[in-house]
Amino acid sequence: MSAKALLPELWTEILVPVCAVVGIVFSLFQWYVVSCVKLTADRSDPSSTEDGTNGHGDYLIEEEEGVNDQSVVAKCAEIQTAISEGATSFLFTEYKYVGVFMVFFAAIIFLFLGSVEGFSTKSQPCTYDKTRTCKPALATAVFSTISFVLGAVTSVLSGFLGMKIATYANARTTLEARRGVGKAFIVAFRSGAVMGFLLAANGLLVLYITINLFKIYYGDDWEGLFESITGYGLGGSSMALFGRVGGGIYTKAADVGADLVGKVERNIPEDDPRNPAVIADNVGDNVGDIAGMGSDLFGSYAESSCAALVVASISSFGNNHDFTAMLFPLLISSMGILVCLITTLFATDISEIKAVKEIEPALKNQLIISTVIMTVGIALVSWIGLPSSFTIFNFGTQKVVKNWELFLCVAVGLWAGLIIGFVTEYYTSNAYSPVQDVADSCRTGAATNVIFGLALGYKSVIIPIFAIAVSIFVSFSFAAMYGVAVAALGMLSTIATGLAIDAYGPISDNAGGIAEMAGMSHRIRERTDALDAAGNTTAAIGKGFAIGSAALVSLALFGAFVSRAGIQTVDVLTPKVVIGLLVGAMLPYWFSAMTMKSVGSAALKMVEEVRRQFNTIPGLMEGTAKPDYATCVKISTDASIKEMIPPGCLVMLTPLIVGFFFGVETLSGVLAGSLISGVQIAIFASNTGGAWDNAKKYIEAGASEHARSLGPKGSEPHKAAVIGDTIGDPLKDTSGPSLNILIKLMAVESLVFAPFFATHGGFLFRIFS
Amino acid sequence: MSAKALLPELWTEILVPVCAVVGIVFSLFQWYVVSCVKLTADRSDPSSTEDGTNGHGDYLIEEEEGVNDQSVVAKCAEIQTAISEGATSFLFTEYKYVGVFMVFFAAIIFLFLGSVEGFSTKSQPCTYDKTRTCKPALATAVFSTISFVLGAVTSVLSGFLGMKIATYANARTTLEARRGVGKAFIVAFRSGAVMGFLLAANGLLVLYITINLFKIYYGDDWEGLFESITGYGLGGSSMALFGRVGGGIYTKAADVGADLVGKVERNIPEDDPRNPAVIADNVGDNVGDIAGMGSDLFGSYAESSCAALVVASISSFGNNHDFTAMLFPLLISSMGILVCLITTLFATDISEIKAVKEIEPALKNQLIISTVIMTVGIALVSWIGLPSSFTIFNFGTQKVVKNWELFLCVAVGLWAGLIIGFVTEYYTSNAYSPVQDVADSCRTGAATNVIFGLALGYKSVIIPIFAIAVSIFVSFSFAAMYGVAVAALGMLSTIATGLAIDAYGPISDNAGGIAEMAGMSHRIRERTDALDAAGNTTAAIGKGFAIGSAALVSLALFGAFVSRAGIQTVDVLTPKVVIGLLVGAMLPYWFSAMTMKSVGSAALKMVEEVRRQFNTIPGLMEGTAKPDYATCVKISTDASIKEMIPPGCLVMLTPLIVGFFFGVETLSGVLAGSLISGVQIAIFASNTGGAWDNAKKYIEAGASEHARSLGPKGSEPHKAAVIGDTIGDPLKDTSGPSLNILIKLMAVESLVFAPFFATHGGFLFRIFS
Repeated sequence: MSAKALLPELWTEILVPVCAVVGIVFSLFQWYVVSCVKLTADRSDPSSTEDGTNGHGDYLIEEEEGVNDQSVVAKCAEIQTAISEGATSFLFTEYKYVGVFMVFFAAIIFLFLGSVEGFSTKSQPCTYDKTRTCKPALATAVFSTISFVLGAVTSVLSGFLGMKIATYANARTTLEARRGVGKAFIVAFRSGAVMGFLLAANGLLVLYITINLFKIYYGDDWEGLFESITGYGLGGSSMALFGRVGGGIYTKAADVGADLVGKVERNIPEDDPRNPAVIADNVGDNVGDIAGMGSDLFGSYAESSCAALVVASISSFGNNHDFTAMLFPLLISSMGILVCLITTLFATDISEIKAVKEIEPALKNQLIISTVIMTVGIALVSWIGLPSSFTIFNFGTQKVVKNWELFLCVAVGLWAGLIIGFVTEYYTSNAYSPVQDVADSCRTGAATNVIFGLALGYKSVIIPIFAIAVSIFVSFSFAAMYGVAVAALGMLSTIATGLAIDAYGPISDNAGGIAEMAGMSHRIRERTDALDAAGNTTAAIGKGFAIGSAALVSLALFGAFVSRAGIQTVDVLTPKVVIGLLVGAMLPYWFSAMTMKSVGSAALKMVEEVRRQFNTIPGLMEGTAKPDYATCVKISTDASIKEMIPPGCLVMLTPLIVGFFFGVETLSGVLAGSLISGVQIAIFASNTGGAWDNAKKYIEAGASEHARSLGPKGSEPHKAAVIGDTIGDPLKDTSGPSLNILIKLMAVESLVFAPFFATHGGFLFRIFS
Repeated sequence: MSAKALLPELWTEILVPVCAVVGIVFSLFQWYVVSCVKLTADRSDPSSTEDGTNGHGDYLIEEEEGVNDQSVVAKCAEIQTAISEGATSFLFTEYKYVGVFMVFFAAIIFLFLGSVEGFSTKSQPCTYDKTRTCKPALATAVFSTISFVLGAVTSVLSGFLGMKIATYANARTTLEARRGVGKAFIVAFRSGAVMGFLLAANGLLVLYITINLFKIYYGDDWEGLFESITGYGLGGSSMALFGRVGGGIYTKAADVGADLVGKVERNIPEDDPRNPAVIADNVGDNVGDIAGMGSDLFGSYAESSCAALVVASISSFGNNHDFTAMLFPLLISSMGILVCLITTLFATDISEIKAVKEIEPALKNQLIISTVIMTVGIALVSWIGLPSSFTIFNFGTQKVVKNWELFLCVAVGLWAGLIIGFVTEYYTSNAYSPVQDVADSCRTGAATNVIFGLALGYKSVIIPIFAIAVSIFVSFSFAAMYGVAVAALGMLSTIATGLAIDAYGPISDNAGGIAEMAGMSHRIRERTDALDAAGNTTAAIGKGFAIGSAALVSLALFGAFVSRAGIQTVDVLTPKVVIGLLVGAMLPYWFSAMTMKSVGSAALKMVEEVRRQFNTIPGLMEGTAKPDYATCVKISTDASIKEMIPPGCLVMLTPLIVGFFFGVETLSGVLAGSLISGVQIAIFASNTGGAWDNAKKYIEAGASEHARSLGPKGSEPHKAAVIGDTIGDPLKDTSGPSLNILIKLMAVESLVFAPFFATHGGFLFRIFS
């Protein structure tokens, strides 16, 4: 039992940072390749590398189109600058407000955790093994606060860099679209990869360095060390909350507002430069779908690592001070970076996209390839990074686990992610019957479209829930909460690839917008639309991953919280727990009500402004006058900053209020309730929205007999489909994805504050009894 | 502790049936009064009882209008006959199919429960007290089967009688509307009261008789006696499931189908006789909203009584054979009938409706009056019907409870019901800002209407959940699962009044339909519309009660199941329970997906048929030819019979499959999960739908400056509101209310089969371990 992992400690110390650095270098290389597409009008030889593949049918789309028109390049550069500036300005505003919150919350963490032992600087008996001596609670307070700030800063950095890359890449994708859909695809995909690898490697590196620095103080007190590290997850996730909610409100207020006046009232196409909200809409894609999602997945990654580490620290890894086994979660992530690197080469170098219909398979293959290779990678890491047998803390007892059992835990999470991804694709891609049925129901108007869409969303919950349930059952049975945490890590191990194909979507979306605004030809717009349609599906897949991993992560954090809070059972058949469950299950509804209403109100404001501009600016409809983009950007910015505060407070304050006033049992109920209810609504919301979006695109594209019978643009069924799409916007891009963060964040916050609640919690029940 | 209740056993034996008979007599009297409105054309003196109150403003609506036009009476009678025949024919078809199911399921109950001890006829040690001897498991099998059939038959009877009364009363309400809104109100309300009292009294009487008959066999083995009685709840609820789902699909297929072609495409008013689906729509109101709801609330009533009785039988009441205390649940219901009787007099005799604006307050006052008086009634029953101190079974231990504590349990349920009712009213009545905001959002089209409506529905969940949580906490803390069961009974104790104001809604709705179809004047239609608008809100309130009580009932049944299955804790932190919770929380989504899709598909079929008739029957639009109503009735009937089977199977089979293959721990998780998730979706669905409906009515009525700025009928905002209303139809009348039954039925089924699962359950886990 005391046998250590095969991999020597020194190797672990070297391998993890090396993999992280490899990831960063690889992403910088991709950035360099993207930057070779020049955004200046003096491009010397625009067609020298063209391979001249001019075929038939689908291949026709590969013909070069207007590559020598230098005025277009200048226009694209100008639009890109506008989008980039809008996004930067919004993010800085957001970060300013969130920064204030962070300082405030850091103080709370310090004060609450410091108060556990009355700010004493004396060493104390350890929580789990009273015979040993651990560092004082004050140290936990200090280091938790530090890791909280580090997590928050890393999250901000992840989101901000993602946004920068995306706004750097979108116009370049547009320009490459002149040279063929394959070229454009590569640019968009490489840019996505920059973000994916930077984020994964960055998260890993910061976490690794933090652990090693904290270790200087903590020494052999790993229990305290990894308890403090959980602050990293909390920091990452609380930034992600504001990023997702603020960004989500921003993007959908602009999108819904632009559509309601532009498409519905004025009958002008999407992304038409005459629409005053069009820049805000494009900015929104970058701050919501890119920065928000980057922060979200970074948060999941940080939290699942922290959950695994904190459980490991009180298992045999921690008790025996087996550093390699202890860092098993980081080894998995390191392996993930290498696997994703190989996977990326399949898309960028080994095969080449030549036709529109090859785009979606290429992206799906990325998922399959990374999952297959990663399975081998996990086996390798489990073999060399773990002792053949060890014990895992299981709510008061130590459970014996074999290394192959832990391999199964990680693998089941990985494959569950793939299943969730494919089911999501089935329900949201217009290549399959569910979305086509929804499109068909548009014949009888918007009402049936919405009814069928809701039914589709409800139905799409079934298989992902079974997939999550199976992974929980397997991982929980084999290795208790540690198993669940590493299952989550397994699902997130291919995060670099997942993010790459996910970020690819908004980049293509923006590229299309820029093509439209720069007045490029219809055929170029067709190419970017084809990229965008595939991106819609991958975005839905990405959301599926985010939700699935959030469910596993929250459960692991919940388990760690329960252990730390010293509860033996969370019995549904006690009044405190059952009311916690009921109220917890209600929180996602409350939260969604807030975010939906916020988007609705902000969109109404946007509508008024867009209408005002159309009515008061002469020549705007005719295209002779320019709209006032800045006012629309400001409306979205102000609305999202203002509206993100109430839902943010709901999530951040609930654990504190419940824990302090009602105690840890009720809080356990609330966490479990919000987890099991939130995951369902989140899946429902993002799939319903994705399906409506693609049902609309299905009618617009008119690629089949059936689709043409519903179209064209402007027909009654199409109008009904646009209504569905608009309803789906806040569901799929604001309230749905924010729910992931709700469930994760409440769990990690409870875990961080567990020592405080265990000491001072349950105020109300104490004064009444 | 061994002190018995003040009320002697003999008095209890007399009082309960007497109250039930009083209720039946009272309802027959109300029926007699309604029947005094003659539906024959030879009415001798139509205005002899008129008091001639002709005032100003609102009072103008009281003027008599066309009371001497005898041809109208004949026409009303004809339409009523068509509706009544359609409803009867549908219900008979439904009952035929359900009857087959019932026989099949009765056989399953007998075989499964009989197999527990291998069909042995020998007496066996009792489950909870092994030192005593109880009747054989075979007896439980036989008597459970009998009580299952009795419950099913009583449920059928409740639904069928309700429908008969409603179709008897609707044309009479229309005719009375000629003589003033007050007269019409009284007819509709009295008819609702007939149903309410008949159902409450009937349910009580059958249960009382069954207990007394079973007692002849069981003698002092009360444990076995009341275990068998739970079949009564199962029978009632499984019939209710099919009633709600089948009726819900029927009514909404017809309603949505009629609206999509009639209102949206052909621009003819609701209930226009030219619309071929109009009779089907009116039939639907009676089979869905009346028969379905009657069965549903009867099921809740039966189940909460059974849950309380089964827990009481293993508490000191049962152990000491204190019959009065044992029948405390029935005493509460008896008192409820008397209280509701007094309450009804306030509406029918003490005050009189003279203006439209008095209708809604009159209905709300019914709720307030009954709650206030019932509080006193509960105190009285708790004082004389309970020992001052007793013990209640609490998962293995006996908990000491005082009679005043039990009074608080019942009262907290009663008042929580009132709060839920009022919150529901606030969110669904167009007198308040939430619905007005939704109406206002129609300015920017259907998409914002739907977004705001969804946000409203999500938000409306918050307070009811807190109300339910508080009642659970209080009742659970005071008296464990017995407390929760009597809290549910408290909420349902005023069921007669609740049903009266609830049934009033569809009757008024139908009355309006008949007025339109009979070609009565605009002013009469205005009166019935006013009745209907109030009815919409009371219907939503009724649904709130149904959901709230369902939540409490399911929890009580769940607790009883856990006790019977011999589980000590339902620990969230075990793999079996946590996956049960997750999957259980998914079931309402699966179920809703089925029912929503069913309504959608059936509505599409209806749309095609209605379009076909408009296109092929010459003179239909001009009103010179009659549409083919029967085909539409047949479409709704066939669709609902066919479509109710899959959701029915999902609910009925889930507990059996989970219990048998995965065992009682996982089943506990599933029950808890579906309870805490289902209650939220149910509240959301019915409030969202109600709000959209009333937002539309708000615009149509144009009663304020704001409302007029959105209207009139046919304006763009009104069209957007109609789309919202159509989406809300399946939410509020099909999937939402059916969810109550889902959570109750799975719990009661698990309870009935608990002996089987405890013996043979967990097949999969056993073969793997």
